Amino acid sequence: MSYKGVAILGSTGSIGCNTLRVIDALGEQHFRVVALGAGKNIDLLADQIARYLPDVVSVETESAAHQLRTQLFQRDLDLPRIVIGEAGLCEIAMHPQADCVVSATVGAVGFVPTLRALECGKRVALANKETLVMAGELMTRAAEASGAELLPVDSEHNALHQCLRGEKRSEVRRIILTASGGPFRTRSKADMEQATVADALRHPTWDMGDKITIDSATLMNKGLEVIEARWLFGFDADHIGIVVHPESVVHSMIELIDGSVIAQMGVTDMRHAIQYALTYPERHACELPPLDLTTLSTLHFEAPDIERFPCVALAYRALRTGGTLPAAMNAANEEAVGAFIEERIALTDIPRVIEAVMDAHDTQPLANLETVLATDRSARRAASTEIAKLTNKSAVLAERMV
Amino acid sequence: MSYKGVAILGSTGSIGCNTLRVIDALGEQHFRVVALGAGKNIDLLADQIARYLPDVVSVETESAAHQLRTQLFQRDLDLPRIVIGEAGLCEIAMHPQADCVVSATVGAVGFVPTLRALECGKRVALANKETLVMAGELMTRAAEASGAELLPVDSEHNALHQCLRGEKRSEVRRIILTASGGPFRTRSKADMEQATVADALRHPTWDMGDKITIDSATLMNKGLEVIEARWLFGFDADHIGIVVHPESVVHSMIELIDGSVIAQMGVTDMRHAIQYALTYPERHACELPPLDLTTLSTLHFEAPDIERFPCVALAYRALRTGGTLPAAMNAANEEAVGAFIEERIALTDIPRVIEAVMDAHDTQPLANLETVLATDRSARRAASTEIAKLTNKSAVLAERMV
Repeated sequence: MSYKGVAILGSTGSIGCNTLRVIDALGEQHFRVVALGAGKNIDLLADQIARYLPDVVSVETESAAHQLRTQLFQRDLDLPRIVIGEAGLCEIAMHPQADCVVSATVGAVGFVPTLRALECGKRVALANKETLVMAGELMTRAAEASGAELLPVDSEHNALHQCLRGEKRSEVRRIILTASGGPFRTRSKADMEQATVADALRHPTWDMGDKITIDSATLMNKGLEVIEARWLFGFDADHIGIVVHPESVVHSMIELIDGSVIAQMGVTDMRHAIQYALTYPERHACELPPLDLTTLSTLHFEAPDIERFPCVALAYRALRTGGTLPAAMNAANEEAVGAFIEERIALTDIPRVIEAVMDAHDTQPLANLETVLATDRSARRAASTEIAKLTNKSAVLAERMV
Repeated sequence: MSYKGVAILGSTGSIGCNTLRVIDALGEQHFRVVALGAGKNIDLLADQIARYLPDVVSVETESAAHQLRTQLFQRDLDLPRIVIGEAGLCEIAMHPQADCVVSATVGAVGFVPTLRALECGKRVALANKETLVMAGELMTRAAEASGAELLPVDSEHNALHQCLRGEKRSEVRRIILTASGGPFRTRSKADMEQATVADALRHPTWDMGDKITIDSATLMNKGLEVIEARWLFGFDADHIGIVVHPESVVHSMIELIDGSVIAQMGVTDMRHAIQYALTYPERHACELPPLDLTTLSTLHFEAPDIERFPCVALAYRALRTGGTLPAAMNAANEEAVGAFIEERIALTDIPRVIEAVMDAHDTQPLANLETVLATDRSARRAASTEIAKLTNKSAVLAERMV
């Protein structure tokens, strides 16, 4: 066999679908899809099975599995092995034929499966940043022990990986993540208090899933990326900077000790980073149109407004404190973003919920997997309580106003 | 000895002086100045001798040598060995204690000494781009034969060298030189016809010598750099692009086959490139303030206007034809720039002179040193004739108008 086997955790999401397009473009001689893990989008998963014939697929629940079996039967397709839930995703991640595991589920659900893939020594193309935020220490330790490679699919970290290729770690002064600034970059604090879910989902440059798009609106996405960068590249909080760059053309950069800055640029299409993570250390030709700076004409850069985007400071605080605090922050953020999408709290309540959870959190060393999962659960409960308080307050307020 | 010996060809020029500042900042334990070659600025050379105590210095003429001896005697300084003319510069370039030769003379005078340094297997930090334009083939052949390293000091090529560090040659699609666009970027063709020497010397971003500043105004500087890039990095004319970028913050970039673009950025101070060329493959800390993109705020990019800047097309033509044509073009350019600085011809006459010389040039293969030097001489004669024609024409015109 000359091809490499690929397993995708989160195959029906934005990164998952783009991974399949990259594999299509590269050709069967390079990569073969051996396992797919999906959530609730059974129709799309069935299409993917029909096209890629994986050995095994995973879905969230037994009822989803039943639905999938029915669909495949109706379409007269052979059934792959169907596995369920977190254990199912772990089976996908550890599939013996998978050389590379694309970790692209949203939120904390990809955490344990990604750890398993790293423990098995597989290359992990990581799009799920929460994994490193929750337990970067455990992940990097597992990767070191097994010799697994961790390749970032996030465009910023992928850019940093590219910038760092020719450089010695000791000669890099700091790394600088670029941030589009999200849909509220130029809006007032008052505007942000009133922002609807639709406003927040209107991302200026990247087409992504809902959770990450809301994270971009609050800049928590950049905060998570700062923590992710710490674990991927070994820089501490003082040596990771953020520059707002609305065009998202410069995907990130590094500053060397001699003052030189190396930047990676490209069009805003995730397929670039995905392909890089699959083919590294090789680069393969890509059919996407190249970047044309003369058409773009102008690139802007500005410092982030820490005042309007308190999530950035919360993330730096979590990184500096370490231990279980980043996992608590991440869990609180997921709950708060969920509550905002369900229109239970305001956009600007998201950092309030997170900060309250972090203030109350009793930070412990990150001993093992159970510590992380326990932190995740307790922080979610604490966040729910905070969200309920805010919801009640606004219900009371709304009642008073009637 | 733990330090490296440095010889500087053109020590009193802009690059030469900056090289000495870099060596000062790096400290004596790293580099020691062993030989200096200067032109007519004897006062400054005497200061440099007093400070760096080189073993040998070279000046242009016997009368300059006499002047130098007198000055050093009056200042009660020990005399270094003083050598003269091209043979003197060659002695500087081949100095046994020189590990690195900084080739920073202006124009064709640095050609033979640079070739000698490469033949001796020395690292050459090359600021004199005419050297590669005239005889890139001979230079790179000499470097290959002796194992000499050729490190570019030109900020654009230095940037490309940095961008290429982590990449395989076969995975680079093309290289892209940035150009400030010079003082006439936004001026009309009519304005350019009337440009004075003072106008042309007003470079927007870089503080450089006169010849190179005029070359920037005509964009011939970028044309010369395209040819230089061909010999430094092995890309043909079709794989070397130019993008106008007025802020000169992105010093140049490469486009990979997967569509990724790696750019090098920095403040516009030549000391960065000089230090890189001296210390490569190491990077050393630099005291210069780092680049702050948020202060700069906006970067612009546009395609070069080939219509208003015909020198660009002339250089591509010379590169595509090869052989002796680039040397002829370079010689014609030097003569035409000289005539413009002396106010004998207009700025827009420079490409006219060059094109006439190129049209009349009988291109030959670049056999050896003598071919190059003979081409240089004959093209200068041809250029002088063209310049005289233009001067007579404008004299006649001026007379008619009286």
